[in-house]
Amino acid sequence: MSAAIKVGVIGLGTVGQGVVRLLKNNADEIARRVGRPLVVTHASVRDAGKARDCDLSGITTLADAMQLAREADVDLLVETVGGISPARELILAALARGKSVVTANKALIAEDGNRVFAAARASGASVAFEAAVAGGIPVIKAVREGLAGNRVERLAGIINGTCNYILTQMQENGTAFDDALRDAQRLGYAEADPTFDIEGMDSAHKLAILASIAFGTPLDYGSVAVEGITRVTPQDIQIAQVFGYRIKLLGIAKRSGKGSEQGIELRVHPTLVPDNTLLAKVDGVLNSVVVRGDAVGEVGFYGRGAGGDATASAVVADLIDLARGLGADARHAVPALAFQPDAVRALPIVPSAEVASAFYLRLKVADEPGVLSKLTAILASHDISVEAILQREPRGHEDANVALITSVIPQHRFDHAVNEMRALPFVREDAARFRVEKFD
Amino acid sequence: MSAAIKVGVIGLGTVGQGVVRLLKNNADEIARRVGRPLVVTHASVRDAGKARDCDLSGITTLADAMQLAREADVDLLVETVGGISPARELILAALARGKSVVTANKALIAEDGNRVFAAARASGASVAFEAAVAGGIPVIKAVREGLAGNRVERLAGIINGTCNYILTQMQENGTAFDDALRDAQRLGYAEADPTFDIEGMDSAHKLAILASIAFGTPLDYGSVAVEGITRVTPQDIQIAQVFGYRIKLLGIAKRSGKGSEQGIELRVHPTLVPDNTLLAKVDGVLNSVVVRGDAVGEVGFYGRGAGGDATASAVVADLIDLARGLGADARHAVPALAFQPDAVRALPIVPSAEVASAFYLRLKVADEPGVLSKLTAILASHDISVEAILQREPRGHEDANVALITSVIPQHRFDHAVNEMRALPFVREDAARFRVEKFD
Repeated sequence: MSAAIKVGVIGLGTVGQGVVRLLKNNADEIARRVGRPLVVTHASVRDAGKARDCDLSGITTLADAMQLAREADVDLLVETVGGISPARELILAALARGKSVVTANKALIAEDGNRVFAAARASGASVAFEAAVAGGIPVIKAVREGLAGNRVERLAGIINGTCNYILTQMQENGTAFDDALRDAQRLGYAEADPTFDIEGMDSAHKLAILASIAFGTPLDYGSVAVEGITRVTPQDIQIAQVFGYRIKLLGIAKRSGKGSEQGIELRVHPTLVPDNTLLAKVDGVLNSVVVRGDAVGEVGFYGRGAGGDATASAVVADLIDLARGLGADARHAVPALAFQPDAVRALPIVPSAEVASAFYLRLKVADEPGVLSKLTAILASHDISVEAILQREPRGHEDANVALITSVIPQHRFDHAVNEMRALPFVREDAARFRVEKFD
Repeated sequence: MSAAIKVGVIGLGTVGQGVVRLLKNNADEIARRVGRPLVVTHASVRDAGKARDCDLSGITTLADAMQLAREADVDLLVETVGGISPARELILAALARGKSVVTANKALIAEDGNRVFAAARASGASVAFEAAVAGGIPVIKAVREGLAGNRVERLAGIINGTCNYILTQMQENGTAFDDALRDAQRLGYAEADPTFDIEGMDSAHKLAILASIAFGTPLDYGSVAVEGITRVTPQDIQIAQVFGYRIKLLGIAKRSGKGSEQGIELRVHPTLVPDNTLLAKVDGVLNSVVVRGDAVGEVGFYGRGAGGDATASAVVADLIDLARGLGADARHAVPALAFQPDAVRALPIVPSAEVASAFYLRLKVADEPGVLSKLTAILASHDISVEAILQREPRGHEDANVALITSVIPQHRFDHAVNEMRALPFVREDAARFRVEKFD
C-alpha cells in the first residue's frame, strides 16, 4: 500500500463531520478501492470549543479556513462551508495551487460555477460536486456518465427534501402549510429561515446544475422560472387526490420545439403528478430524479437528499474519484459539466408564457345559477378542453369552489382565460393555479 | 476536433444494431462530450443478407468475428455475441492486442470474469460491462463509483424483465404461469427456450456481478442459491396481496453476521415484498435495484432492463468512458470490480439453511377439526411465531388452504417445522414456500 492521500476538510458542520466519520469508519474498504488510504489530516473550524460528532484525533485543526485552503500540506480539499462567499474564494485559492476540491455547494456551482470550472481548468485541478444535487443519490454521475450515450429529452426531480416533507405532511394529515413548516423546523428538516427552500431557490440551484450536464448548456440559474410551495393548500392537495394526482415541488428541465425552434424549459413549481408515477410516491425528506433519454427511455433514482451521512457519501465518492486521478493527465478526465468546455452551447430558454402543460385551476365562486356554463364557455372560446372538473356543495356560508384540469396549452392562453374568468361578477378569487405534468 | 475514435462491433443483433443506431443518431452530442467523434468503422455479421434496423453505410462488415477481434483497425471493440464461447475467445483476442472491450455479456462476466479481467490487466486494456446488469440503468457505475464511500450492507433487485413481466401479468390478470409465459414469448419478452430467465440463472449472473462490486469479493456465480418462478401460482400471488405483499423474483446480496462470523448471502428466489416498497411497484419488464449503504441509507434505481436501445445506452456510456481513457495510464482507472485486484477478498457464503428471513407457507389440508391447532402447535414447538394467517372456506370438493407468514427464522428451522407438518395425516401437500423480505 502506497502513502496515504491527505485530505483537508474546510468546515466541520454536519457534512464536514460526516466526511470525517465516513473516511474513518470505512478506511479499510476505501483503501482497498483506491489502492492508497484516504486520511483527513487537516480541518478548519470556526469554533474550536464546539462539541462534534466525529473523532478529530490525528487531525490538525486550524481556525483560519483560508490558511487551510492556501497552505496546508494536503492532496485534496473538501469545502463544506456553503454559500457563495467565502466558499468561492476558498475554492479558488485551493485551485490556484493545483489542489482539486470536492464541494456540496449548489449555490456556488449554480451561480458561479462557470468561473470555478475555468479556474480549475487553468490550474489542471478538478472540482467535483456530486453532493450538490440530491444528496447521496449519485445522479450527477448517472446523468453525466451513465446516460452519456443519450440525448436527454427531459428530467424532473423532487430535489428539496424540506418541501417534500412539508407537502407530504399536508397530504397525509391535512396539515396547513404553516403548521407543516413548523413541524419540519422542529425536526431539523427546515432552517430557522426557510425562505431558500420553500420559495424554490434551492431546487432551482440544483435544477440549473442538472440541466447543464444533461443538455450541454452553460449554467444558467438566472433563467430558471421559480415558484415555491407557500401557496399550496390542503384543499388543493385533497382535490388533486380526487383527480388522481399528488402535488409535488418539481424541478423540470425539458427540450421543447424542433430544429432551429429548439429551446429548453427550466422551471421549479408545485406540480400535479399522476399518483401512479414514482415521483408521486416519493414521500417525506426523500429526493428522486427521473430522466428521459432517447435511447434508455425513463430512468429513475431515489434516496436521501440531505443529512450529514448521505451528503458525506457523495463527497467521499468524489474524493475517491479525485484520488484515483491524482497525477493523471487531466485531459482524460470527465468534464465537470459533462461536455467539453468548448462544446457547451446555449439554447434559448422558453419563456414561461410559452411553456405548455395542462393546468389545475381552483376558483372561488358565488353559489348561483349559470356559473359552470359561463366558465366553460370562456375556456371553450380559448380552445381549452376541460379534462376533469369538480364542484362540491359548499358548507354553510362558504363560497363554492370549482376546480378543474385543462388540456395541454401554453401558459399565456391559460392566463388569458383565467383573466376573463376573474372579470365575471360571481368569481371571488382565482384561488390556485398549478401546472399538471403527466410524464407520458 | 481531433481524429475519430474507431469502434468495431462484434455481432449485429438487437444490441449491436442499437449501438450502431445510437452512435449515428447522437454523433454530434457524443463528440461534444468526448472531444472526438466515435464512429463504428467495422462490424461482424453472421448473415450478411439479413435485413437490419440500422444504417450500415461507411461500416466495413466482416463475416469472421475473430478476424474483427484480432485484426481490424479499430480503437475499441463492442462484443454483443452473448454466451460464454466464442464470446470469451473474441474478447481475449481483442485484449491480447491491447484493445479495450465493452460487453453486455453477463454470463461470461459472472462465470469467467476473473479470467477476462486478468487478461485485461496483463495487456493494459479495459473491459467495461455496464450493460450486463439491468440494461440501461447505470447501476454498475452507481455501486462501483457513486456509492464508493459506503460499506454496502445489502442490495436487492428485480433484474430479469421476463420474470417481472410474467409475475405482473399473473398479478394483474390472475393469469396462470404457463399462459403468462406464452404471452411474454409472443411479445418478444421471453426466448423460445425461456429456461435461463424463468429458472433464475440470468438473475443469478447479474447478482453475482453486483455482489462482487458491492462487497469487494471475487465473482462467485456458483455460490448463488437460485430458485426460479415456475412454482409461483396466481393463488399465492392473490393471498400475498391479502397479506399486503407482492411476489417478485429478487436477487439479494446481503452481509450477514458480525466480525469474524461475517459472511454474505447470495440468493435469487421469488420473494414476498411489502406492497408499499418501490420494488413492489416496479411492474412489467422494468428492472429496479435498491442498495443499502451505511452512510447513504437506501438508494434506488429503476428503468428498462432490456431491449436494444436501453442496452445500447449502457454500451455507449461505456464506450465514452473508454474513449476518454484512450492513451491514459491504466493505473488511474476505476478497477473493473470496484476494488483493487489485490484487495479483493472472499467472504464465506452463508448456506441457504442458515439464511434467516420470514417465510410464507401455504398448505393444502383436509377440511376437518383441529387442523389449525395442530399446525400452530408445531410452529410454537420450533419457537416460530405466526405473523399472519389466512384460511378461507373451501369451495365444493377442494382441499382447504392454510397460508401463513412466520417470524424471521433460519431456513433450517422452518424446514424442520414444515417436515413435521407434512407428516400430519390431514396435510395433503405443502403447496408453496417462499421467503418474505421486509427491507426494514
